[in-house]
Order: sequence, then structure tokens, then C-alpha cells
Amino acid sequence: MIIQKTENSRISSFDPENYSFGDHFTDHMIICEYENGAWGEAKLMPYGPLPFSPSNMAFNYGQACFEGMKAYKDSSDEVYLFRVNKNFERINKSAKRLAMPEIPEEVFVGGLKALMDIDRAWIPTGEGKSLYIRPLIFATEEGLKARVSNKYMFAIVAAPATSYYSAPVSVKISDYYSRAASGGVGFAKAAGNYAASFYPTQLANDEGYEQIIWTDDSTHEYFEESGTMNVFVRIGNTIYTPPTSEKILDGVTRDSFITLAKHKGIDVRVEPIAVKDVLAAQKDGSLKEIWGVGTAVVTTAFKSYGYQGENFELPVLSEEESFALSLKKALVDIQTNAAEDPFGWREKVEKDVLQTV
Amino acid sequence: MIIQKTENSRISSFDPENYSFGDHFTDHMIICEYENGAWGEAKLMPYGPLPFSPSNMAFNYGQACFEGMKAYKDSSDEVYLFRVNKNFERINKSAKRLAMPEIPEEVFVGGLKALMDIDRAWIPTGEGKSLYIRPLIFATEEGLKARVSNKYMFAIVAAPATSYYSAPVSVKISDYYSRAASGGVGFAKAAGNYAASFYPTQLANDEGYEQIIWTDDSTHEYFEESGTMNVFVRIGNTIYTPPTSEKILDGVTRDSFITLAKHKGIDVRVEPIAVKDVLAAQKDGSLKEIWGVGTAVVTTAFKSYGYQGENFELPVLSEEESFALSLKKALVDIQTNAAEDPFGWREKVEKDVLQTV
Repeated sequence: MIIQKTENSRISSFDPENYSFGDHFTDHMIICEYENGAWGEAKLMPYGPLPFSPSNMAFNYGQACFEGMKAYKDSSDEVYLFRVNKNFERINKSAKRLAMPEIPEEVFVGGLKALMDIDRAWIPTGEGKSLYIRPLIFATEEGLKARVSNKYMFAIVAAPATSYYSAPVSVKISDYYSRAASGGVGFAKAAGNYAASFYPTQLANDEGYEQIIWTDDSTHEYFEESGTMNVFVRIGNTIYTPPTSEKILDGVTRDSFITLAKHKGIDVRVEPIAVKDVLAAQKDGSLKEIWGVGTAVVTTAFKSYGYQGENFELPVLSEEESFALSLKKALVDIQTNAAEDPFGWREKVEKDVLQTV
Repeated sequence: MIIQKTENSRISSFDPENYSFGDHFTDHMIICEYENGAWGEAKLMPYGPLPFSPSNMAFNYGQACFEGMKAYKDSSDEVYLFRVNKNFERINKSAKRLAMPEIPEEVFVGGLKALMDIDRAWIPTGEGKSLYIRPLIFATEEGLKARVSNKYMFAIVAAPATSYYSAPVSVKISDYYSRAASGGVGFAKAAGNYAASFYPTQLANDEGYEQIIWTDDSTHEYFEESGTMNVFVRIGNTIYTPPTSEKILDGVTRDSFITLAKHKGIDVRVEPIAVKDVLAAQKDGSLKEIWGVGTAVVTTAFKSYGYQGENFELPVLSEEESFALSLKKALVDIQTNAAEDPFGWREKVEKDVLQTV
């Protein structure tokens, strides 16, 4: 790995008690370039702009995918990553579906650890705080012909994230717009999937909803995802979440919730969730919770949902009663080394990683 | 408009008798930046890279859309554009669906004419040659939160294109992969639509097909597009093309073909094309032609197609017999000022546009 440390650290401009997510990027970033059929040597360098022309193929044909990860500091200032291998495997699934080259493990994992080590001062401590990490791959060849790029960049950038807390939101069950086609790229963390979701979300916002529960594009009868998260429904004391598919992202937080719920003895069913079954459970009073899960906020609980012009309220549960909130706490405790980790998910970032890369 | 002419023209490195499409970009480009809710002043400047960090939201969330256009020189070296308003309207339809700001007409059309005027020496002459023009809009804010960008760039770049000729190709009728969801962004020239098509196309290439005829994602029973083009089918002496929809691009070449065919007295039906009807016409001998149309190649004729493991040959027609080839010739003659333009499609680029902008 080529190491080029910054000579102008911006850490003094960062107040860990007073910042917003995305206001600050850490001092460094990892980049690695692909050309002539091979990845070059990874480079740790100061975070900042690089030269790309408007004919860059990522801007034109959208070959770009990413991961979302977090690093956490425990009460002893030790730094931990979480289920790194899941994100490494998924970025390569996304890359494959977008006809992009897969990134080698030593570049992804080695780059991640080196960046976390050198920028460890940027990882905030305290309730719910973390460093959000963004690995991504994007096309970099200049060209106007709609074809696969011959050049790519892998990069890792990072920014301090604020508290996990997010107030319960109201969501709209989509009966027109959709985020994924059968035989499409919905399972990939493809850049274009996000752009496609913004306009329908704005329309839902205009109707007073904060997010959309995406349904299948053919019938709109089955739940797929919620916002940019996987979705869970609790009916009685059973948790349901749709099986992953070519249309549904294989979320790391989703998988962790399923595992934690089973570990706690909760009945978890990974099966299609029909809108009509949710409405029936609403009617008979057995619908207890609906929530979304993802790396950024871990869990967003829903307070109400709209479907075809009608609004439905969800019960207000205490943190003890709520499966969503108790599972979230269990997960965060593992992530931040506040609890045992029976699953081997937590990974400590050793100091002075750079001396060994 | 801010004008910054190059001091290092690269035109002497461009041999108009010997080049490949995309090898060369013209000396200049147009850029215009959007922030604080408004587009700034357009700028004509030397073509080249600009600074963007890997946290650029276009790389991460794919807010990016484009247009494809061409400029042509006639035998007197006058320069013409084609149906500029159609592309202007469409880029804004794409922008709206991707929750991006619409570009003002004076920036799009004014920028286009200024660029064509200053770089007119780059427009090659001769059979089928043209200058390919790429207007695009993409997000430019740096951020790691999946939301709409607050900053954008509009740009126009251009590259000399080679002859229109493309040999007839074999295509695969998709029975698994798809390019567009109902309620999705298929009608937009969204960057992500192209990235999503590359991997299925590679798989089809591996089976010996050059392109895919995309079918609806729910049933795969109806034609949608072919490769990156709109698709036409001729049965007997009637031409069919699917109606535009939220899933099908409203192609300028498609619209021009429909208009030209009607003008020639050909029976044109804009209606869904069922795979089973194509197969039935193949069986009874009435299937004459299938072809794709788009700005880049105008027309690609198909020589054969595959469906569920079976291959079907299409008749070999002369240029006189072929509707695809005679309509193509009629269109190119209008574009290059080799024929009358009864539709008012052609637009001459006046000299010294820059003095008036």
C-alpha cells in the first residue's frame, strides 16, 4: 500500500460534541485504480478531489456501487468494525451485476483497516456515535459509447455519524412506484437504485409520509423494502421479513436482526409479506410493529402507514415491549463492545496497522 | 455565457479520415453549475477534467441523466443540428424523474450552439460521419447520506463519430433479465439504466448474441426496447413499435421513423408487440424485419433472434425492399441536408454564435 499522510490535518475543525452527519470527512481516503484488466496498488492519501471529466463513464452510464459500514469506539477508545466480510462479499455481488471488476479482499479489508487506524481520532465516542464508512467502486474511463468501462476506481471515504436515534416515522405503502424490476438490479447496492427512489419519496413527503414501503412492481401486493432499508413486520409475537431475492438487498443489519431474534427465542419467519395480511392484522389488532433496518440508523420504527389514501396507526410500545427497539439495543451493544459477541461479528482494529501493510 | 477559449487546440492530432468513435473529444465543453436553488452562468471552456471527490453524490447515488445528439456537415460545410427541442424536453423529463433540477432552454440550446460553432472544425464530413454530442446533468454535492443532492453540473461534451454503418446483428429476446420496472425509471435516460443492462448483455454475448430485446419484467411476453434502442417489427407491410410508457424511452429517432414511415404511406401501428405474435409471423412467413433505432447508429438491422434456446433467421432484404434501411436513408438525408426537410427538423448552426451569447 502506498502511504501518503496529510500534512494538514483538519481534525481541529471537528467538534465531536457538535456536528452533523456528512459535514466532515476524515483526513484520509483509500483509492485503488483498475486498468488493463487488473487492480493497481492501493493508496492511502489525503481526502479530497481528483480529476474526472464530464465524459467519465460513471456519470454517463452509472456503473457505480457502494457499501455502508461503521466503526465504533468502546469506553477504552478501542476501535471496532462489524461483520466486514459481509460488506466485502456484497460489494463484489453488486460489482458483478453491474459488470464491474470485483475488488480483492486485501484491498477492501486492508484499506479499511489502514484508514480506520490512521483516522482513529475521527471516530467519535458516546451514545450512538460512530464513524460512517463508505467503500465504493465506480467507472472512470472517459467515453461516450454505452458500454462497459475499462477503468474503475475503488475508494473508501469516511465521515463521523451522529446518534442512531431517529423518531418513529410515517410511511406510505407504494401502489404505483417501485424500486426494482424482476431480472433487474434491486439486490445490488447500485448507485442508480437510489436516484430512482428520490422522486417517488419526494411525492410521498408531499403527502406527509417520510418514507415509502416499496412493493413488488408487478402487483404491489408484497412488501420489498422500506426507504433504503430492509423491512420487518411483527404480528402477535412473530417477526416477518421478506426473503432476499434479485429485488431485495441482502442487508447486513437485516441478517443480524434475524440472528439476534432467533437467539432471543423470537419466532422469525423469512417469507413474503402480503399487504392484505398486514391490513388484516391491523384490523384484528394483532399488528404490533413495522420497522426498517439498515447500517445508517440501525432501526427506524414506524408510527403509522398509509395505503391507498387511508392511514393506519401502529401501537406505541415501550423499549421493553418493542422487538424493534430491544433488538436494536442488543445489536448496538455488540457493535460498541458493551455486550458479549457470541456470533464473532465484532472486529478490533489494531493500532499501527500501517506498519504492517 | 462565460467564454474561455483553449490556447492549445488538439485539432491537428485528429485525422478525420482515420479515427474511432470516442478516441477524440473536441477542444471545448460547456459547463453550468447549480447550487442554492439556481443554475449559474454557463461557461464554454477547454475540454478536460474537473475536481470531484469519491464522495460526489453522482458516484454514490446515481443522480445522472444524459442525451445523445449529433451535428452534421453538408457538402457546403454548413453545420446542422437535428430536432434539438426533443432532446431538450427529454433531458428535463429525465431530470424530473431523478429529482434533479430542470435545465433552462437558454443554457441547453445556447450552450449547444455555442459549442458547435466554436468546435465546428471537429465535425467530420463524408458518408455517415457526424459529431456526437453528449449533454448531461449529474449531482456534484459531496455527501454520504442517501438523499437528493443540492448541487449539480450540466455539461455538454462532443466527440467525432464514425460511419453509421453497422452490420446486421443477432439478438436475444430476454426471458429473464429486464431493464425497467413498472413505476420505475425506464423512460428516462438515467445513467443507472445503462449500467443495469451491461451484465445481461455480456451473458447474451457469451451465447453468441450481440444485443438483447428487452421484454416486460412481469411476463416477458412483450417487446420493450432492444439494446439501448427502440425496437420496430415489420409483419407483411405493416410496421409495429411499442407505445412509449414509463418503461420505454421516447426516442427521437423512433418518433422520426414513425413520422417518415407515415409520410411514405407505410402502415404504422404503435401498439404492444407480443413475442407470440412475432413467433407466429415467423412461422407463417409474414415476419419481414426487426430493427432497433437510436441516435448513435440510426438503425441496427437484425439478421436473427433467439428465444428460449431456439434461433430464428430473418429474411435478407435489399436496401430497396427493407423498410428499416430505406427509412434510415431518408432520415440521414434530412439530417445531412441531402434532401428536403418537410418536417422542419433540421436546424442550421449560424457562424459566430459566440458573438451573440
